[in-house]
Order: sequence, then structure tokens, then C-alpha cells
Amino acid sequence: MFETILIANRGEIALRVIRTCRELGIRTVVAHSTADADSLAVRHADQAVQIGPPAARHSYLNAAALITAALQTGAEAVHPGYGFLSEDRDFAEMCAAYGLTFIGPPPSVLARLGDKAQARSAAVASGLPVLPGSTGALESGTEAKEAADEIGYPVIIKAVAGGGGRGMTVVREPRDFLRQYAHTRATAQAVFGDGRVYVEKYLEGARHIEVQVLADNHGNVVHLGARDCSVQRRRQKLIEETPPPALPASVVEAMGAGSVRSAAQLGYTGAGTYEFVVDEDHNFTFMEINCRIQVEHPVTEMVTGVDLVREQILAAAGHRLTLRQQDVRRTGVAIECRVNSEDPTRDFLPTAGTVHEFEPPAGPFVRVDTHGYPGMRISPHYDSLLAKVIVWAPERDQAIARMDRALQEFRVEGVSTTTRYLRDVLAHPLFAHAKHTTSLVDEIGGRTL
Amino acid sequence: MFETILIANRGEIALRVIRTCRELGIRTVVAHSTADADSLAVRHADQAVQIGPPAARHSYLNAAALITAALQTGAEAVHPGYGFLSEDRDFAEMCAAYGLTFIGPPPSVLARLGDKAQARSAAVASGLPVLPGSTGALESGTEAKEAADEIGYPVIIKAVAGGGGRGMTVVREPRDFLRQYAHTRATAQAVFGDGRVYVEKYLEGARHIEVQVLADNHGNVVHLGARDCSVQRRRQKLIEETPPPALPASVVEAMGAGSVRSAAQLGYTGAGTYEFVVDEDHNFTFMEINCRIQVEHPVTEMVTGVDLVREQILAAAGHRLTLRQQDVRRTGVAIECRVNSEDPTRDFLPTAGTVHEFEPPAGPFVRVDTHGYPGMRISPHYDSLLAKVIVWAPERDQAIARMDRALQEFRVEGVSTTTRYLRDVLAHPLFAHAKHTTSLVDEIGGRTL
Repeated sequence: MFETILIANRGEIALRVIRTCRELGIRTVVAHSTADADSLAVRHADQAVQIGPPAARHSYLNAAALITAALQTGAEAVHPGYGFLSEDRDFAEMCAAYGLTFIGPPPSVLARLGDKAQARSAAVASGLPVLPGSTGALESGTEAKEAADEIGYPVIIKAVAGGGGRGMTVVREPRDFLRQYAHTRATAQAVFGDGRVYVEKYLEGARHIEVQVLADNHGNVVHLGARDCSVQRRRQKLIEETPPPALPASVVEAMGAGSVRSAAQLGYTGAGTYEFVVDEDHNFTFMEINCRIQVEHPVTEMVTGVDLVREQILAAAGHRLTLRQQDVRRTGVAIECRVNSEDPTRDFLPTAGTVHEFEPPAGPFVRVDTHGYPGMRISPHYDSLLAKVIVWAPERDQAIARMDRALQEFRVEGVSTTTRYLRDVLAHPLFAHAKHTTSLVDEIGGRTL
Repeated sequence: MFETILIANRGEIALRVIRTCRELGIRTVVAHSTADADSLAVRHADQAVQIGPPAARHSYLNAAALITAALQTGAEAVHPGYGFLSEDRDFAEMCAAYGLTFIGPPPSVLARLGDKAQARSAAVASGLPVLPGSTGALESGTEAKEAADEIGYPVIIKAVAGGGGRGMTVVREPRDFLRQYAHTRATAQAVFGDGRVYVEKYLEGARHIEVQVLADNHGNVVHLGARDCSVQRRRQKLIEETPPPALPASVVEAMGAGSVRSAAQLGYTGAGTYEFVVDEDHNFTFMEINCRIQVEHPVTEMVTGVDLVREQILAAAGHRLTLRQQDVRRTGVAIECRVNSEDPTRDFLPTAGTVHEFEPPAGPFVRVDTHGYPGMRISPHYDSLLAKVIVWAPERDQAIARMDRALQEFRVEGVSTTTRYLRDVLAHPLFAHAKHTTSLVDEIGGRTL
């Protein structure tokens, strides 16, 4: 087992990883920007190394600085968290070149799945259903328009290098296509440094369902059930739950089996997520694979009892999965709400500033993963995720009541948060009756209901 | 269902009850002493009523003031928590007389089980094994000494009205008996207002194991498995866990079945706990029944997924138990550590004062039930329980590692706490290998190891 792990991330996920490392007896080093010098992750880690100024490209995206920090502190492995370099093939390769274990799938898998068009082909090859779409990246607007016309509108233009809900544009009318194509390419080039795009059929009123897989280096793969992440605002997930409500278990099992088969074929290792869209008739189609721990992983932990970060580390250390598919028990319902430091009354504008009071909820079957504390200064440099409130209950109604209680109890002063907005979404009849799709939040709008 | 519940208690359990009430849509009123005006329970309740000065007899033991508060605020039921009036037959009767539902067993059951000698007879009647002992309260020192001589030393003298680990004296030598008898009677009279005592065989090196039962008003009773509460200091529990380690499941089932049979015969309702001692050959003998929610109830909640306070309230409201014995699933291992505001280096002297910093642990499978917060003033009037740290894991070793991580993470400044001491107990080879008995802590002593 590793003696020391460098955590190449920040915020709640850095703290999350520290906790599991400590339980495994592993020393932790947090690499952090100057903006995060007072963070909980820095305070809780065994060691902290300042690697650069706040701008991500100078610190959390600075592969050389991260590798140097790992080597200087005697780390044998690097946990990349989510976002930043967590799915970066070059970073994974650099780690290997310097004798560091990258806690994630091998660079070759990252390269293949990081290209969304290739990931789509891989899914097809392993028998996963996909939506009608172009078979690869499209080189010209004319070619793209031809593909879109053949697929039929609405279509979605997706950046080959996209992720985290960015680099996607829905086009409903043929006459808008070329303009949106140019815009998406430009955005993809600016954000991901790769302007290539492809086109796929866009499903209206569908649900976003994803399957958690775990794989070791010995060819063993299991799935831990599915999460419904349909409550999204501009493709950013707000509420996630497991099991997906009103989705037959047989559909989840089919998605799970398909994901396991695909992961085994790909030589996937560690924790990964297969994302699907599911229509109202419960037809599922593959979207993409996320090669990292997900923000919403705790809901799966709550219903399975499995510590996913622990499994990631054990797999990276070469251990065999101790969990067999038939041993995976999923009990009850878990829901996660992402509490962001944003102002819902001002179009969810991120609110930086100092958190004067910070009292997260607690009590039976409530978990809060947060980097917040009284006196915390929220930097404008990073995303606005302040806390994840996760609850478990035997039944969905009780889980919703528990979440409402927990959000009501959450007290934050000094910055605006989305707790009140999240409570309104929970209380919406479409959500309460599990009839919501990814359109729910955009239909509701930013107003409290 | 009740619209409003009065909580006749304080500290972490008052907050615990508020949380479940809120999830059930029930309004809460907290009755509190002047010393608790700034408590979290008062802040989180829907309404708070000040009922008297800090001394418990003027507030939390003041039945008239509590009833008045309930009637004035429109409460229909009273949750008594643990300690104080939670097992007080007179209070339960007063509630009934004023049309309030006492959330606990009926007064007749409280009367019978509050008399430990009668409880012992009831256990015998329902076939539960008991230790050799006097068949009832003993009227004179001579009579008691004769009983003790016949039973054989060591014996334990117990107050008929005792509870919470108080009013008990172990006598090892016949020559000490009469002095200890007089002392125990005097203590019992002073503490419980009832000087009656009885004598029982005392088992050295035994384990304290207890069974959680739930009963409704319709004759249905289930048990939720057993807890090992052997880690005690002067009969005060420090660490509790479930399932009892190194105890065959068949023994737990036998204890559970016996407890269920007894509770059904007694007409018990709500949540209750059957306490047993278990010797090294796994023979169990009945000790007493606690007619209330226990401090250590969260470990049972963690492995069963059942909210015990919710079940108490539903049962008191006349609902039928929805849980059948065959539906009770117990998964994994849960451990609770009681973090007290005491100084282990000064013989566990309670430390009052102001809590300057208060950062409880968090993370996967960690729950903290606490009334602590930064700025809290700890009053010398009440017990020193500051927080309960509860963890869950699939296996005991992992649960211990998780608890150690959680305790290490717990930061309290301003008052001494027992976190370091608890970590030493967790690391003790006898505890780690589950070979400990109730003698463990007394053998270790107050020093850190």
C-alpha cells in the first residue's frame, strides 16, 4: 500500500480524499494554490505544498508543479479528485514517467475516452445503444450540417474534448445550425484547446442516468447501481439520487451490465461513470464515460456502504476487488443536493466573500461534504460548490423530507447560497412524483417557486 | 399524527428529537432551563419555553412546569428523551391526566420496571435467565447479608429505583457487606428518594450486552439486534458497538427472542432496551430494562437504517409497526464514542467553561450527535456529554480505523475532552481483538496508555 499520496485538487473533494487516506493509514500531501492556504484541506492534510497562484493554469492545472510537489514530499501516488487534471492523459503519463501512480485509469484509456467521438465508437463496439450521430469529428460546417440534417432536429453539437457539461449546444432549427456550429467550435477551442466537435440527436424531456463502475487491474469489474442526475441547471447537476426513481430495476441492471461489459473491454481501472440519457419509455442510450470520482459519488456510498475513494486507492495499489457483483447490496434511497455560493435571485451569480456563520446540518442519515467553515473566504477563482448535503432513508418520500429538514437547518451567513432554491425544487410536484426530466430547472427558472 | 410535541429534555437528545419531528412535519417546543437559553435545541426548535432555573429539580425534573409548558403551547405529546423524567411513572401519569401523550411505555409498565426487583421477577416469569439474587427488596442489613452469603461473593447491591449506572455497589468480602449496604441505601435515598435495595451475584469479567426492542400499541414487538456496551468507566458507558464483537449470532438471536417475548408479556410500547451481562462462555443473564431511548441508540440506527425516534413517535401516535422481524436487516458494524467535557488527566473531572473552537468530524459514514458549537458555555449543572461520534463500516477493523480518524479530526478548544483517551482505548489490544470486558477501563485507569 502507498505510504504517501499527493492530492492534486482542492475544496471538498481534497478533504474527502484525506479522510479515506487517514483511515487507510496513508500520509497525505495537499498541493494548493496561494488562494487556498487557509483551506480545510490544507489544515487537515499531513503536509501542504504551495504550488502557485490562484489561476488554475498556474497551480491545479500545472502538471510540472504537481509532479515536483509529489517527488519532493515522497509521495508514491497522486489522487487527482474531479475536474482539473483528473482526466488528463498527459498528466497521467507524466506521473508514470516519474514513477508516480496516477489514481485513475491508464493514460491509453483516458486518451480514448477523453475523445468523445472515440468513446462513442467504443460504446457501440461493446453493444451499448447510442443516439444517431456523426461517426467521428466533423471537419467542416457543411459536413456537420449534412450530418445534422440526416439525423433530424433537434441535434446537439458536442466538443470532442468537452466535459463537465461544457462545450455543448442544442440546435433546434436547421437555419441556426451553422452559426451554432461556429460558436461551439470557438468555445471548445478556447476552453479545451481543441476545437473539434461532433453531432448527435438531442433527446428532449429525457432523464440523465449514470452507472457507477469499479474495476481493478486484474480484469474484475462491478457496477454499483445507477444515479439519476436529471435535476440540472444549464447542464450543471444540482440534485442527484439513487436509485433512479420510477425506473424499473431491470433497466438499471441492463445499463449496469452493459457498462461492466464495456469497462472490461476497454481495460478500464478504478472508479468510473457511464452516463446515459433515458427517454420516457425507459430506452437508454450511452452519452459518455467520466474517468474519475464524481461529485455525486456519496449517494452511491450511502446505499451500498462502499467507500469509493478507498476502492480507487486499493485498485491503484494493485489490489483485487473484494466486492463481487452478487455481493453488492443497494438499500434505501440517497439524495444529494449541491449547495452553491450563488444568488438564485440574480441568475445564480456566484457570490464571493467571507462566510461569517457556517453551521451545516447533521443528525441521523445526513452527511455533509464541505470545505466551508466560519471565516472562510470564498475565492472567485474556483467553482461555487460550497457543500454537498447527502441524506439516506428507507423510502424516497422520507429521504426528501429528511433533505428538506437538513437544508432548512443549514445556516450560512455572509454569502448567498442555493439552499432555499433547492428546497423549492424538492417540493416541486414533478420532482416529488419523480416525473421530472433534465428540463425541470430550466422550466422553473431561477425564481423561487 | 401529532401536530406539536414538547421536548422535556436538553442537550444532544433534544436536538436529535427536533430533527426527526421536523422530518415528520411535527412542530417542536423545547422546555428549557435558564442555563440552556442559548442552546442549539432552543435555537432549532420551533418554539422554546423557559421553565425554571438550572437545578434540574426546578426545571427538567419539574413535572408541573413541563406540563404547563405543554398545555400553554398546544403540544399534544411529550418526548422525555433519556434521564430526567424519561422513566418516571408519576410524570407519565400526569401527562395522561392532562390529555398529553407521554412518548414511552404506559405508566403501569414504568412502575413495574422502575422497581428493579419487580423487573427481575418479570424477566424470570417470561423465561429470561437471571443471576442468583434476592427475590425482592431487602428490609434489613441482616436479611441482606444472609442473602449475600447464600448467593456467594462477589455480590452487587443495587438500588430498586436505580438507573444510569448509579446506586450500585460491588461487595467482594463478607466483612465489607454491612457497611456497603448502609452506604448504598443512603445513596439510593439521597439520589432516587427511595432507599430500597436488593442483592445479586456479581459477574467479574463479563460483557454488557443489550437488546433494542420496538413495540406498538397493538401487541407487535420486534428487536433490532444487540449492542455491546462493555467499555465503561465507573458504570458509565464510554464506547458502544453493534453487533457485539465475538458473540455468536445465535446468542444475539436468543437474547433478542427472549426480550421480544418479555416485552410482549409486559405490554411494553415504544423503544426499550433489555440489558444483559454475558460471561466468557456466552451465557447471558438479564439485568434490567431501560424504558426510553438510549444514549447509544444511533449505532442500532446505523446498521438497521431505522430512525428509532421516529418509531417511538409513530408508536405513541397509535400507528402499527411497519417493520416485521424478518424485515430487520443488520448490515456492517457501528461504533459510538461518547466525547465528554472531562479531563482524563485529572480523574475525569468535568470541565465547565466556554468552548472557543468546535469542529466536529465529518465524512463518509460518520455521524456526530452533539449540542456543541463555537462559543457554547458548558454549564456545571448537567452531565458532561459533549458529543457522540458514531461511525459505520462493513467490518469492525475498518470501523475502528474510521472512528480513530474521526476522533483525531475532532477539534475542541476551551475545555478538556476525552477524545485522546477514547483513541487510546480503541487502540488497546483487548479492545482491538474484542477480548475486553466491563473491567477494561478500570484496569487501564485514567492515564493515557
